[in-house]
Amino acid sequence: MKASYYNCDKTFTLGACCPVEPKSGEVRIRVAYCGLCGTDLHVYHGNMDARVGCERIIGHEMSGTVEAVATDVLDIAKGDNVVVRPLVHCSECAACLNGNSHICQNLKFLGLDIDGALQQSWTVTRHTVHKLPNGVSLKHAALVEPTAVACHDVNRSRMSAGEDVLVIGGGPIGILISMVAKQKGGNVVISEINEQRLSIANNLGFDTINPSQVDVGKYMYETTGQKGADVIFEVSGSQAGVNCMTSAAAARARIVIVAIHAEQPKINLFQFFWREIELLGARVYTADDFDEAIQMIASGSIDCESIITSVQGLDKVGEVLADLSGNPSALKSLIQVGEAVA
Amino acid sequence: MKASYYNCDKTFTLGACCPVEPKSGEVRIRVAYCGLCGTDLHVYHGNMDARVGCERIIGHEMSGTVEAVATDVLDIAKGDNVVVRPLVHCSECAACLNGNSHICQNLKFLGLDIDGALQQSWTVTRHTVHKLPNGVSLKHAALVEPTAVACHDVNRSRMSAGEDVLVIGGGPIGILISMVAKQKGGNVVISEINEQRLSIANNLGFDTINPSQVDVGKYMYETTGQKGADVIFEVSGSQAGVNCMTSAAAARARIVIVAIHAEQPKINLFQFFWREIELLGARVYTADDFDEAIQMIASGSIDCESIITSVQGLDKVGEVLADLSGNPSALKSLIQVGEAVA
Repeated sequence: MKASYYNCDKTFTLGACCPVEPKSGEVRIRVAYCGLCGTDLHVYHGNMDARVGCERIIGHEMSGTVEAVATDVLDIAKGDNVVVRPLVHCSECAACLNGNSHICQNLKFLGLDIDGALQQSWTVTRHTVHKLPNGVSLKHAALVEPTAVACHDVNRSRMSAGEDVLVIGGGPIGILISMVAKQKGGNVVISEINEQRLSIANNLGFDTINPSQVDVGKYMYETTGQKGADVIFEVSGSQAGVNCMTSAAAARARIVIVAIHAEQPKINLFQFFWREIELLGARVYTADDFDEAIQMIASGSIDCESIITSVQGLDKVGEVLADLSGNPSALKSLIQVGEAVA
Repeated sequence: MKASYYNCDKTFTLGACCPVEPKSGEVRIRVAYCGLCGTDLHVYHGNMDARVGCERIIGHEMSGTVEAVATDVLDIAKGDNVVVRPLVHCSECAACLNGNSHICQNLKFLGLDIDGALQQSWTVTRHTVHKLPNGVSLKHAALVEPTAVACHDVNRSRMSAGEDVLVIGGGPIGILISMVAKQKGGNVVISEINEQRLSIANNLGFDTINPSQVDVGKYMYETTGQKGADVIFEVSGSQAGVNCMTSAAAARARIVIVAIHAEQPKINLFQFFWREIELLGARVYTADDFDEAIQMIASGSIDCESIITSVQGLDKVGEVLADLSGNPSALKSLIQVGEAVA
């Protein structure tokens, strides 16, 4: 059995890993696919070394098949196809006690704080495992985790059918949010500065604008009868995106902060006051969001084939991350962790 | 009949005004009292000259008695004690059509865009008028408008009894928000940098902290079992206040932006993401907020006598605003507009 180890300095090494027998409440999974995302890029660039260390198995966007279960795990069995919701909460902090265990104050993230899915045999606790319905390919199922992020973001926004939606940033998460919002009846416009990504978004059937050529606020007001966008997703992580979000907002608009802003941007609070705008932080997903994402993928509402732009072997993690760093036309790159499967 | 005219250059002139006969749908009011607020201070300092001009009767925190009504006004009569909700909406914009006429995109504010209450005889449209219950003094009723602001802010926060509340800024609106939140069962802490205002807040029975001496975030976590504040009102209008609001927030906290931030502050969006915080803009009030404020004052839930720190004549508007500019120990100054009444 093999795993890809992150050894700091942009280095990933293919090495051996020993399958761990499931103890009480645990499940062992033969990992099939694992997607790489922006967080993994942060790891690659060394920004998270203090947190992950230099001998970590990363990866958290996975799919696989159950190999073994502990004797006290009765509702899941060898051979089940599954995905893992990579969150381990403490059950004791105020957030957990208030029903928000997904933002547990002591949250451990599998693939960052604990070894993740870039290993062929992975043992996790039962409560992180979601069964896949029949007919969902393991390749597509590797998109459940980022789709769950998108479902969580759209659910946080309280978007209803017919509302005007602006997605600021057309990367993989921006595209998935757009697909989920469109599926739920939103009128989606994607704002993206990169022409390659604009072209992908257009090919997927979305209305797009390039904020380097169009005044986003003016565009949204003019195309909505001077109302503005009801729901806005800030996925760019940039000051320019933050400026757009307030300029395009309708009265009582909901703005969901999806991007991680390492720098503190300046924000037009006057506009928040004037139009009674809401800003909603959104992080990861709940178990319900995960189930919704599974249903979205099972029903074909997410165009998985258009999103998955490459599949590479387990020995290629470093190369794929290096490539993603400088290639904005790629959307989602998967690593095929185990042997070829359906 | 007399009125106080704002003539720019920090000048108010006492002059004559002619009572206007109520036309269809209108009501003429003998104004009793009118409070002065932060917005009036902005007018005094010339910041709003482009909007209000140099011949404007300002004033919007009023109480009075109906003198005359148009023949088609059947539900209000001469002799009724009333207050005026000083908002005129257009009924046609997207905000009005979506049920948010208080943030109408073409909102006219009485006392800024149209002449206000610093005149002894004031004619307004019926829909702006709220009747007072018996037993409410006209002096106390002049606090209905700022209390409605506080009710609106607390309602926007969705605060429930038992929640931990931080009010950043202990001026008149901060104190009124604190009183409303406490009345509804919130555990209120007021953060205020000015020792005179801290002393007033303490004398009113509130827990207080001085952010120049205490780390507000640390204090809120330590006093809530490492949870943080569930609800935060940013009433300071300062970058320091904005820093406090994110540092003190519990998971899924609601932060209400009450202050008008003319400058764009830097905001810790990472914290919004990490703890799924909400930020809610809040502006003026709805008709329901106004009715709630009337009930709060009628029931004695608002300590009006502690808030009203001076009552002056109609010829003293300029002097009172000059005094308010440099006197942080004052809370609410009223102008007695008409003859002395109960």
